Amino acid sequence: ADEFFTEPEIDIVVEVIGGESPALQYLKRALSCGKHVVTANKEVIAKHGAELLALAQQHKVGLRYEASVGGGIPLIAPFQYELVANKINGIYAIINGTTNYILTRMARDGVDFSSALSRAQELGYAEANPRDDVEGIDATYKLAILASLAFQSQVRPEDIHCEGISRLSTRDFQYARELGFAIKLLAIATFSGDSQSKSPPLSLVASC
Amino acid sequence: ADEFFTEPEIDIVVEVIGGESPALQYLKRALSCGKHVVTANKEVIAKHGAELLALAQQHKVGLRYEASVGGGIPLIAPFQYELVANKINGIYAIINGTTNYILTRMARDGVDFSSALSRAQELGYAEANPRDDVEGIDATYKLAILASLAFQSQVRPEDIHCEGISRLSTRDFQYARELGFAIKLLAIATFSGDSQSKSPPLSLVASC
Repeated sequence: ADEFFTEPEIDIVVEVIGGESPALQYLKRALSCGKHVVTANKEVIAKHGAELLALAQQHKVGLRYEASVGGGIPLIAPFQYELVANKINGIYAIINGTTNYILTRMARDGVDFSSALSRAQELGYAEANPRDDVEGIDATYKLAILASLAFQSQVRPEDIHCEGISRLSTRDFQYARELGFAIKLLAIATFSGDSQSKSPPLSLVASC
Repeated sequence: ADEFFTEPEIDIVVEVIGGESPALQYLKRALSCGKHVVTANKEVIAKHGAELLALAQQHKVGLRYEASVGGGIPLIAPFQYELVANKINGIYAIINGTTNYILTRMARDGVDFSSALSRAQELGYAEANPRDDVEGIDATYKLAILASLAFQSQVRPEDIHCEGISRLSTRDFQYARELGFAIKLLAIATFSGDSQSKSPPLSLVASC
């Protein structure tokens, strides 16, 4: 594996391991050895993106992570380039497909959480270990990445209040329907800094 | 004005005239004099985009037109960069805000076309001369720009079948409602070329 990072013929390293370790260590070595890096690893970018970007800059290589949030939808680059002159005040997003499927089934068909989850797993929407999805952790990683870009500051996963969907009951959906509401896992980040001064944001509220 | 194009201190020309002439002539001169160009002029880009891009390339300058379609939404750059490796088979878009407002009012409030148009003009959504919007010409320009990017070929406004909304009557909306349909001005482009060979697309169907 050592030769891999020092091989001069290799210009770009694409990381598809997923998870924090050992992906983070490999990405750091690749950047330190002057390799461009492409990754879809939302956990690593959400937790260590600032550090990795600094490392990339130091070694004059690129670090691209477009597929870490909303795989098929260009989001990262538009935030970095086309929208960079905008002052973005908030992000409100349905950002996790698995939980959105589960919530739709619970609301529309009246099934309970575990049945909806089993069906999502049968269809291949949910992982065998669905914890990151149903506890909102996946959404938290994605929101940390998007909010960091949108607000041009460092938003860490631990800065985000996180509440999953696993404790929702069919009764919650009955109440919601009676009141005319829908239940969704929303990723919300709002910026309330002083845009006139150069001071850091006064507060940054984000939740999943 | 001549000095403007030859002044060495000027690097970038931003065109905000609108319409085909004299904007096209100015843009050509700016590019020929080695100035980067930024424009939101959908008519000029739809009709003469290929020629202007070639001119820009020849003089090693940039031609950017992100705001020519969907001003606030990054669309052009995502098509040019992030989505460029994709094979896009079709575009289906509600692409003109003025007509969408008019159609919504006609469907929801049962008002006739001219009342809905007057209201749109009062609110500043429609131009004093609304012809380009209501006859689908604005949508045709935008679709020509998007389809050219998406299919990586040259789609001209005259290649697009264009039908506006000015002849719709309240009765059309009654029928649509009875049948469970909505009436929308859709910009549609579908690609049906042979993706395996290097030959040009066999057919390209686009309509507004």
